[in-house]
Amino acid sequence: MRHILSRPLLTVVGLLLSACTVGASAGKTPPRPAKDRPNVVVIFADDLGYGDLGCYGHPTIRTPRLDQMARQGLRFTSFYVAASVCTPSRAGLLTGRYPIRSGMCHDTRRVLFPDSSGGLPASEVTIAALLRTLGYATGCVGKWHLGHLPEYLPTSRGFDSYFGIPYSNDMDRVAEPKLGKNIFWQPSVKYWNVPLLRDARIVERPADQHTLTKRYTEAAVTFIRKNRERPFFLYLAHTMPHVPLFVSKEFAGKSQRGLYGDVVEELDWSVGQVLDALRDEGLSENTLVIFTSDNGPWLIFGLHGGSAGLLRDGKGSTWEGGVRVPCIMSWPGQIPAGRTTSDIASTLDILPTVARLAGGKAPEDRAIDGLDLAPLLLDGGKSPRDTMFFYRGTRLFAARQGPYKAHFITQPAYGGAKFEEHERPLLYHLEHDPSEKHDIGPDHAAVIAAIRQAVEQHRAKTAPGKNQLDGRLGKKAAR
Amino acid sequence: MRHILSRPLLTVVGLLLSACTVGASAGKTPPRPAKDRPNVVVIFADDLGYGDLGCYGHPTIRTPRLDQMARQGLRFTSFYVAASVCTPSRAGLLTGRYPIRSGMCHDTRRVLFPDSSGGLPASEVTIAALLRTLGYATGCVGKWHLGHLPEYLPTSRGFDSYFGIPYSNDMDRVAEPKLGKNIFWQPSVKYWNVPLLRDARIVERPADQHTLTKRYTEAAVTFIRKNRERPFFLYLAHTMPHVPLFVSKEFAGKSQRGLYGDVVEELDWSVGQVLDALRDEGLSENTLVIFTSDNGPWLIFGLHGGSAGLLRDGKGSTWEGGVRVPCIMSWPGQIPAGRTTSDIASTLDILPTVARLAGGKAPEDRAIDGLDLAPLLLDGGKSPRDTMFFYRGTRLFAARQGPYKAHFITQPAYGGAKFEEHERPLLYHLEHDPSEKHDIGPDHAAVIAAIRQAVEQHRAKTAPGKNQLDGRLGKKAAR
Repeated sequence: MRHILSRPLLTVVGLLLSACTVGASAGKTPPRPAKDRPNVVVIFADDLGYGDLGCYGHPTIRTPRLDQMARQGLRFTSFYVAASVCTPSRAGLLTGRYPIRSGMCHDTRRVLFPDSSGGLPASEVTIAALLRTLGYATGCVGKWHLGHLPEYLPTSRGFDSYFGIPYSNDMDRVAEPKLGKNIFWQPSVKYWNVPLLRDARIVERPADQHTLTKRYTEAAVTFIRKNRERPFFLYLAHTMPHVPLFVSKEFAGKSQRGLYGDVVEELDWSVGQVLDALRDEGLSENTLVIFTSDNGPWLIFGLHGGSAGLLRDGKGSTWEGGVRVPCIMSWPGQIPAGRTTSDIASTLDILPTVARLAGGKAPEDRAIDGLDLAPLLLDGGKSPRDTMFFYRGTRLFAARQGPYKAHFITQPAYGGAKFEEHERPLLYHLEHDPSEKHDIGPDHAAVIAAIRQAVEQHRAKTAPGKNQLDGRLGKKAAR
Repeated sequence: MRHILSRPLLTVVGLLLSACTVGASAGKTPPRPAKDRPNVVVIFADDLGYGDLGCYGHPTIRTPRLDQMARQGLRFTSFYVAASVCTPSRAGLLTGRYPIRSGMCHDTRRVLFPDSSGGLPASEVTIAALLRTLGYATGCVGKWHLGHLPEYLPTSRGFDSYFGIPYSNDMDRVAEPKLGKNIFWQPSVKYWNVPLLRDARIVERPADQHTLTKRYTEAAVTFIRKNRERPFFLYLAHTMPHVPLFVSKEFAGKSQRGLYGDVVEELDWSVGQVLDALRDEGLSENTLVIFTSDNGPWLIFGLHGGSAGLLRDGKGSTWEGGVRVPCIMSWPGQIPAGRTTSDIASTLDILPTVARLAGGKAPEDRAIDGLDLAPLLLDGGKSPRDTMFFYRGTRLFAARQGPYKAHFITQPAYGGAKFEEHERPLLYHLEHDPSEKHDIGPDHAAVIAAIRQAVEQHRAKTAPGKNQLDGRLGKKAAR
């Protein structure tokens, strides 16, 4: 008789269970125990600022799915990218190494352009290549920007499959002299001759950018469903909200924040689709999902650029607004729900963290700048990261150690902006002063000395790689 | 047999119930139905900025109780005070009227000082006076700043009881020429000869400011427990985080944000104590709790001032950073949990809202600028407020209508700052551009015309009251 329950009570229990269970599977059994080679999904937004999500304080952009992901996971408030522009930031994420090592940074050509001949060298080991050796299916969906010649494409860098655009969506711009900068405010697909690739083949040109977010999302969900029986790594690098802003008709005009908000809200929807697919396939509890952005907001584009919130400056600069980004990690059952951490962490740390979770190791034949975040994520401990170096191009502009950040060189993000070397670096206490308003250098000589020493040690063990961004194709060879 | 449950299952049900039940009372029965004359608690911080709470995006200030209150209630992202400095802001909240009407604003003496002879006129009807006529117990705890002569004190303005300091905690400053501005960075109780009053009697002078937050909290909890059998209105107006910053030893050095963070985290603790007392007394479900701030952060005090987040400027200005503040309202069972609204609302609206909830009406013999927020709070509807006027002193500097804000006059918050009248006002779309960076006036003549018309209509029906802030006591009479 011990199993007798009246129907109303059963209903109550059922409701409670469904109300209280987070990410429950829809009946399918997860194919593997949660901690055995977990799936990894990295969702990377493009130019999304620190202040652009609901859970990071934006007043009018609605991001209910990301806010929910934060409530069910870990939200970072001091999470850094490897560089404040696209190409080196992505190189840093995928290799766990400062881009100076791979040569994926440059002082004038700061990213790859359609006429570039270079890309991420074959000698670099990406997260995808590493996880593939451990039996993972690996998929890349979205913007690549690490080289668009065949030998540099995702399928040549450890990914089984690729669907996306090979560089930024404002490249391959069609000359429209009459429009001038208005080409950005009234974007039309035809103004940018950007190719859309499946694996290494162009399937559409110009890409219909209105439906990119939607099609990336479908491709991501398809990849998840197809690979549910084996461990997988999905790198979903959205083209948006990089200018020119495009949005599907379902989201056009829906956000209070205008077009930029529409675009971010469609990304939020996309995150929800991915999380729902994981849940539906019974994979939520053995999948680590990481959401972050490649750099701060592109402020020169006004209302088509995002917001760094309370942080100073944006994309392209080594002020916090350029390099500190939103980051949420969730893994139901493993990462405790609803925490916020101001510990320092970085996209550099993703490679060693997932390598270990997958039962492997970061490459041991080279310097890896990333650190294993498992103590912070899983064990309620502190981040192993205490120090972060901030490069602009090939030059180290600033460094953070603990709460202190020293700026040896400063330069506003874009334009003919003033380059300034500081004999006595500017110093900010970022926990007290996240907006970098109050230089406390004059009273903190010992702190500056310690940071200088950390920089010297870093320099001593950081050999610049052969530059990959300065090479150019002949006119005919350019895609 | 229908009630038979095995012990393990009962335990599971119990755990689920306890995990899922929010704000349950500790066994005592609420003395009244939830909607019958609900209690009202207004918690008012001093100089807390829009960006200073965890749930408004601050990276290092921890405010778990306010974040939880937001998850259980309604969080506002376009909530405005009646003025960007202390005295007029408080006059606006307590009367539901722009302070120009009561004469509680002035262009040079912007607030009351210890040598002031004026205060909130007896002809004004406060929330407390109004609710008292409806049978409410009324208690004021904290900073008053609406007149410190006996005839202006809280107990002369509708409150049954008072415990707090009569003006700002940086007033009655003791001359310490050697210290200069350092008097703020190394605050000592003896540097400010601020009196602490119980009702109209001085009980301590100088007030020990280290324990003010704690003692205010104890007084608030005592008031709640004492009045649990009848409806009550509690106005808890904290002295903090106004400079000079003081914190109790339990919170000193605890926040990553430094002293300012310690102070805000103690306020968060205080909010938790109030909510816990309501829960323990079984009153959660018939109490509307409102948390907000009197104006934006006092930026000239550097790290001892707060952050307006992504908003422009701070306390003293009519830019958003001066007038838009955090606001959370909770009323379990009545206000749906976990919503955020960017609808416009104001401290002006509290009086008519609570008057109606209490079964009464706002005074009908005078103009009331506040609007009843019940449709937004309780019925899932929109805010009735579409327009907000922003005064600096007695002059209307700016006005918001829908998403648009026009600045007719601008002036940075403090100091010898440039006063500028704009023949063609600056215009910002605040939903697109909360940071007021991109003037769109040149393209929006019709919007400007509509706002001008709203301003003229407002002026036509807004007679300035006799000024109350310019009168001074003789030297001997000053407290």
